[in-house]
Amino acid sequence: MITTTDTSIFEAMESNVRGYCRDWPAIFSTAEGAWLRDEQGREYLDFFAGAGALNYGHNNPILKKALLEYISSNGITHGLDMSTVAKRELLETIRDTVLSPRGLDYKVQFPGPTGANAVEAALKLARKVTGRKTILSFTNAFHGMTLGALSVTGNAAKRAGAGVPLEHSTPMPYDGYFDNTIEDFGWMQRVLDDSSSGFDRPAAVIVETVQGEGGVNLARAEWLRHLAGLCAARDILLIVDDVQMGCGRTGPFFSFEIAGITPDIVTLSKSIGGYGLPMALVLLKPEHDQWAPGEHNGTFRGNNPAFVTATAALREYWSDDVLAQRTAENGAYLGRALAAVAERHSGVSTRGRGMVHGIVFDDPSQAGKVCRTAFEQGLLVETSGSMDEVVKLLPPLTLGSDELDQGLSVLVSSIDTVCGGAA
Amino acid sequence: MITTTDTSIFEAMESNVRGYCRDWPAIFSTAEGAWLRDEQGREYLDFFAGAGALNYGHNNPILKKALLEYISSNGITHGLDMSTVAKRELLETIRDTVLSPRGLDYKVQFPGPTGANAVEAALKLARKVTGRKTILSFTNAFHGMTLGALSVTGNAAKRAGAGVPLEHSTPMPYDGYFDNTIEDFGWMQRVLDDSSSGFDRPAAVIVETVQGEGGVNLARAEWLRHLAGLCAARDILLIVDDVQMGCGRTGPFFSFEIAGITPDIVTLSKSIGGYGLPMALVLLKPEHDQWAPGEHNGTFRGNNPAFVTATAALREYWSDDVLAQRTAENGAYLGRALAAVAERHSGVSTRGRGMVHGIVFDDPSQAGKVCRTAFEQGLLVETSGSMDEVVKLLPPLTLGSDELDQGLSVLVSSIDTVCGGAA
Amino acid sequence: MITTTDTSIFEAMESNVRGYCRDWPAIFSTAEGAWLRDEQGREYLDFFAGAGALNYGHNNPILKKALLEYISSNGITHGLDMSTVAKRELLETIRDTVLSPRGLDYKVQFPGPTGANAVEAALKLARKVTGRKTILSFTNAFHGMTLGALSVTGNAAKRAGAGVPLEHSTPMPYDGYFDNTIEDFGWMQRVLDDSSSGFDRPAAVIVETVQGEGGVNLARAEWLRHLAGLCAARDILLIVDDVQMGCGRTGPFFSFEIAGITPDIVTLSKSIGGYGLPMALVLLKPEHDQWAPGEHNGTFRGNNPAFVTATAALREYWSDDVLAQRTAENGAYLGRALAAVAERHSGVSTRGRGMVHGIVFDDPSQAGKVCRTAFEQGLLVETSGSMDEVVKLLPPLTLGSDELDQGLSVLVSSIDTVCGGAA
Amino acid sequence: MITTTDTSIFEAMESNVRGYCRDWPAIFSTAEGAWLRDEQGREYLDFFAGAGALNYGHNNPILKKALLEYISSNGITHGLDMSTVAKRELLETIRDTVLSPRGLDYKVQFPGPTGANAVEAALKLARKVTGRKTILSFTNAFHGMTLGALSVTGNAAKRAGAGVPLEHSTPMPYDGYFDNTIEDFGWMQRVLDDSSSGFDRPAAVIVETVQGEGGVNLARAEWLRHLAGLCAARDILLIVDDVQMGCGRTGPFFSFEIAGITPDIVTLSKSIGGYGLPMALVLLKPEHDQWAPGEHNGTFRGNNPAFVTATAALREYWSDDVLAQRTAENGAYLGRALAAVAERHSGVSTRGRGMVHGIVFDDPSQAGKVCRTAFEQGLLVETSGSMDEVVKLLPPLTLGSDELDQGLSVLVSSIDTVCGGAA
Repeated sequence: MITTTDTSIFEAMESNVRGYCRDWPAIFSTAEGAWLRDEQGREYLDFFAGAGALNYGHNNPILKKALLEYISSNGITHGLDMSTVAKRELLETIRDTVLSPRGLDYKVQFPGPTGANAVEAALKLARKVTGRKTILSFTNAFHGMTLGALSVTGNAAKRAGAGVPLEHSTPMPYDGYFDNTIEDFGWMQRVLDDSSSGFDRPAAVIVETVQGEGGVNLARAEWLRHLAGLCAARDILLIVDDVQMGCGRTGPFFSFEIAGITPDIVTLSKSIGGYGLPMALVLLKPEHDQWAPGEHNGTFRGNNPAFVTATAALREYWSDDVLAQRTAENGAYLGRALAAVAERHSGVSTRGRGMVHGIVFDDPSQAGKVCRTAFEQGLLVETSGSMDEVVKLLPPLTLGSDELDQGLSVLVSSIDTVCGGAA
Repeated sequence: MITTTDTSIFEAMESNVRGYCRDWPAIFSTAEGAWLRDEQGREYLDFFAGAGALNYGHNNPILKKALLEYISSNGITHGLDMSTVAKRELLETIRDTVLSPRGLDYKVQFPGPTGANAVEAALKLARKVTGRKTILSFTNAFHGMTLGALSVTGNAAKRAGAGVPLEHSTPMPYDGYFDNTIEDFGWMQRVLDDSSSGFDRPAAVIVETVQGEGGVNLARAEWLRHLAGLCAARDILLIVDDVQMGCGRTGPFFSFEIAGITPDIVTLSKSIGGYGLPMALVLLKPEHDQWAPGEHNGTFRGNNPAFVTATAALREYWSDDVLAQRTAENGAYLGRALAAVAERHSGVSTRGRGMVHGIVFDDPSQAGKVCRTAFEQGLLVETSGSMDEVVKLLPPLTLGSDELDQGLSVLVSSIDTVCGGAA
Repeated sequence: MITTTDTSIFEAMESNVRGYCRDWPAIFSTAEGAWLRDEQGREYLDFFAGAGALNYGHNNPILKKALLEYISSNGITHGLDMSTVAKRELLETIRDTVLSPRGLDYKVQFPGPTGANAVEAALKLARKVTGRKTILSFTNAFHGMTLGALSVTGNAAKRAGAGVPLEHSTPMPYDGYFDNTIEDFGWMQRVLDDSSSGFDRPAAVIVETVQGEGGVNLARAEWLRHLAGLCAARDILLIVDDVQMGCGRTGPFFSFEIAGITPDIVTLSKSIGGYGLPMALVLLKPEHDQWAPGEHNGTFRGNNPAFVTATAALREYWSDDVLAQRTAENGAYLGRALAAVAERHSGVSTRGRGMVHGIVFDDPSQAGKVCRTAFEQGLLVETSGSMDEVVKLLPPLTLGSDELDQGLSVLVSSIDTVCGGAA
Repeated sequence: MITTTDTSIFEAMESNVRGYCRDWPAIFSTAEGAWLRDEQGREYLDFFAGAGALNYGHNNPILKKALLEYISSNGITHGLDMSTVAKRELLETIRDTVLSPRGLDYKVQFPGPTGANAVEAALKLARKVTGRKTILSFTNAFHGMTLGALSVTGNAAKRAGAGVPLEHSTPMPYDGYFDNTIEDFGWMQRVLDDSSSGFDRPAAVIVETVQGEGGVNLARAEWLRHLAGLCAARDILLIVDDVQMGCGRTGPFFSFEIAGITPDIVTLSKSIGGYGLPMALVLLKPEHDQWAPGEHNGTFRGNNPAFVTATAALREYWSDDVLAQRTAENGAYLGRALAAVAERHSGVSTRGRGMVHGIVFDDPSQAGKVCRTAFEQGLLVETSGSMDEVVKLLPPLTLGSDELDQGLSVLVSSIDTVCGGAA
């Protein structure tokens, strides 16, 4: 058993760009379900879940079994975009558990294995299909770090990292951006319909139904419906970036199901592979499948081990609505518990949907303090929002009630510690 | 045993963007070393090796063992950029087997797990460090499909896919671009030193030492040295994109070692993970490590299973120079064999370095025919070059002499078939 | 006396881009005051005044005398940016009649002799001074046709003419854009202060106090003050484009005087030369005068005959407040008369300030019909607005009361004709 | 008679951007032919001629007479783009003296009254006609200071003034850029025909036949022909920017006549108005006249006094070939004289065509010294070139032999003074 944490090699060899390791100064070795363990054997309850990439928990045993069998039997590991047995099984499973039950007719694209790559592909396709250039994004959006994805991302520090101007995109106000003091689509609708507004006609709108990185901002179902209608009436493609909120994070498989809309293009990544392995998908309406062969390619489009765990996860968790139901129930429970603690403190509020929740602090510094205090008590949570003012909760969807309570208990005590007991 | 190939589900469900599966109409199931096997049990000798991502062969047993042990023992799978045991071991191994023996002092960045993401990070960093915007790239370059990487890529069809103008980059002539009729750096040096040339001062030059996608174009060691000197004298960063040519493809671990240069930034991906799992690295001189924490992030930066196979691969293959030696010998052998066949046909020539070789056809259509003929005989090879006029060979570095001969034999007969026996 | 209008040579030789000549199919020969005369001797009362370039009327005799004397005496005609006697007299006159009486301390730049060039210079300077790139413009703005000026112009058809994406600018809602249903600066202030809004921090805001081309939209004094305060508090430069509304069009010399604000940069053109000769000025606060010598140059910066008429005009019309007073009175009179006619028709409204007025038609086609009807009766007026729904009135400031009444009379009868007598 | 030069008001009130007035510290009052006179009565022989805007000399009496008559008779001064008698006469004269005799069939566009505006219009049109974006320009090119024109200009200091990246253009090597050591079109032709060069297919090429600002660089007739052929074969428009070299500067009316080519688009300004009044033209092949009415507009397109002097100049100087002949003879004489002085000094060379000549100094500082020395002796000349290493001579085409000799004499003595007598 190692007794001290020696991070010197990381400091010596890893670039300054490293981030989470600074907030969580431990050297992690193993993980299972909602728990991580470090080298000294200390255990951490994970309410961050790989930023939403581990909806089914760490090293989920059902997926692990499928993965080990696949690797052991020399199943294709790296398959470019060749046809493989594993890909066929995944496609069939997507059709049978995801698309058909929801009456959706999408073609499936395997872009590079990251959410940013899926977004890049979606933007390219929307531009090709429409022959236009501008993409409308939303305030506080987050879509990735590559140049195309970054151009529709809101965060100023991330944007500055580009080193070049970010073009061909315009932010619009997200639902509730004005604390509901201004009509939601007043600006967007007006400028789209005014030929002298100075805005060029957009190819597409890209939207998250809940902005995770942006501070757990929720778009209401009616807002999403209005947005979809507004796009449809103007021949503008609607892209839902479901990288973080898809795969059941908010309850249903797709986060946009609550609105009854059918986006033109959907991006999926993070939990789609099930096991935390890099994988991404773009779903697109058949009429938009105007790609030329190889027009968007990449070496790791065929990460077949991830196809195997993706298939296993879809079969296990999406053949019925048990998980969706559980997420709804746990989410409601979590929401009530957070509301209660928020009520006890002034300057604290909370919001969420399914198993994504935010605790918002009027004093942004308190959010960071709560995370640090929680870490000392073995709970992993992170901040988000433009001023890091929100503690964001993304527990595995599969965690047990006792684990949920345990995490909640640490959170409540951390908030009490930071905000001064009960108000 | 399945007896017919039914690709209907791929045609029905997968986007038109799929590519390789069209050239190789089989449904692959397992793989080992240099061999793929399809559902009907047919075997294919792989001289493409995942476009260079499988330098150590498919499902390499040494790496497989480490991978299975890691997964079985619940090692961290998805680690964001947290410190983990697997990452520490990788960093130590990079230091001990790659950097120290070569006297290199680089910091290591874990970007998103693709070559394109590594390139995006490299470009961002070069722009941040220098405060300038323009990147000089080269004719026929290939660096990836995301917007930043695409802007330094040459292929017109890929570029058109962007749907927006690709900016802040300028191509320069690659080594041999004028068939050696024009002095190599005449244009580049002239415009860099002429304040009225109309070129803005660049942040960096990005170069491949061998352009794989561009048609197996080779940069000579002296050309690379001249380029490095030209950059150094003008405070322009030199980025070597070693995504395809690194990890021993040309012989030494880094392809630029033949020139004795030390790039400011190096990108690695494809074979760095060893097992074909998505992973990428950016190596950067410590003085350029001006990243702010989290300034370039991404969900799959911490694909720890790939760290484990990367570590195992470096320990197995780069603790000594056996593989490098073998690559040099096999490469020389392959080169001689190809030269012999080229000599027998007019309109056919060949070029290569280490285990990347190109067979160039004056009549571009012949290259595609050779690939199709070879496929029918169970050999996987692909074309590259601006007119798909080059058959590109990227066999696993670890293949046996008999396998090399077997592949060569199919190639020779395919060329003879297509080009009409011996000339 | 020519008796028919033969425009065949214009059709044969002049590019399709020609515009006004299509609306006013006459061949004009001479002009004086508010009147144009065509070849057949027909006279036209000019309520367009060179789109605001002829505030003092055509061939104003006072200016004409100065101009003839200057040319006759071989005064410098083309002076680049050399120091000349004529330029000195202009600078002194600007100082004594324009700047000093208003307590303004501006440096004077002579850019190329067009409003667009003045705008280009202003944008360059704002970017240089702040080191930022983005310019905030407003919906329905018009600033010119060169690439930089066009990027801050709203009209979609004009923008499309660029043939390239127009970048580094973002439109914001102009005063009253939402019919006063939404708080004016809600959006702009919110995104400027939200570091995750997706908007990059702007170098400057460029604004017209009345949008002439955009449809005679008026910014209220308090809105302009709020805008100026908002910029000042955030270190954003405020550029007032007074090309059309300056030189007394709205009453005071500068149109922004009603708000009591001092812009960082002011652009002037159109009537600044007095006689309709090409000339433009940029006024800039001394602390922003960070130009390097020759950094923005141009062949016709020193159109000295225009300096002479500019000087004469300033001395004649701006040594006292007689003209400003008269403009206020005539404007009020004109406004009342138009309000009366608007009241008599449903779907017609009117707005204006000083001697710029718009008659707005709910049915845009009526505006064009009114202009055509008026032309037939010898009155020149034009439409503006995003749907050409506004008849825009810009009579010379110097026209007589009888001329004003005569024009009004034609207008009223034209409106009655088009809109069906009295409602 | 004023006896001292007091430039204090210029220093106090005029922006730092002022340039020529710094080199020529005098306050000019009158001018005639090749002579300027300052307030103290000192006379200066003008070998700069308004940077080429005064090919017919200052206040040319023939043009002056027409101008005074026009103004006196209340001819339309400001005519927007209305049809006027003065414009008709100009169009007829262009047809009869310029186009018909040369067998040219061009439509005439009146853009804003500056060369930069003509260039902006030409670039817009080329992009519209071809549907492409990129413009190829040349090293050391100068086309103007507005954003579009600046993007095809070479000078780094001017470009930096933009404050934003200059896009959608790529420089190519101008004739002789490599001192004739490299085949002229090797690079350009290669990248245009290589679909993986990384260059996007251009809309147009814009070229000066002699680069005045760039250092009096001459393109040979055969180079221009090759360029025209290269464009024609690839459906790329050829734009000749004849703003400075047109109107007879090099001998024939259009500078490209020596090559026997017919550009798709020609820009004219500077001397086209004849008298130094702001005016510009775009000539375009009828098949390219795809402008929509008003798609490119501007307030001062109809500077009718300039139309009058333009007409008078064309009639006087271009009804026969006397002036062209005289320019050829004077140019040859000037060239011989300069060659003789260059021969006497090491590090001095000379080049030119017609009445534009450059004296090139290996030590750039000598060029500035020669200009200052010449100024002290009453001769106005200026430097050009990327390092201001060239003394550029642009005397009025109409100057007398004695004036030519007088200027030459000052030049020779200035060179001798600076370069140390005879070598």
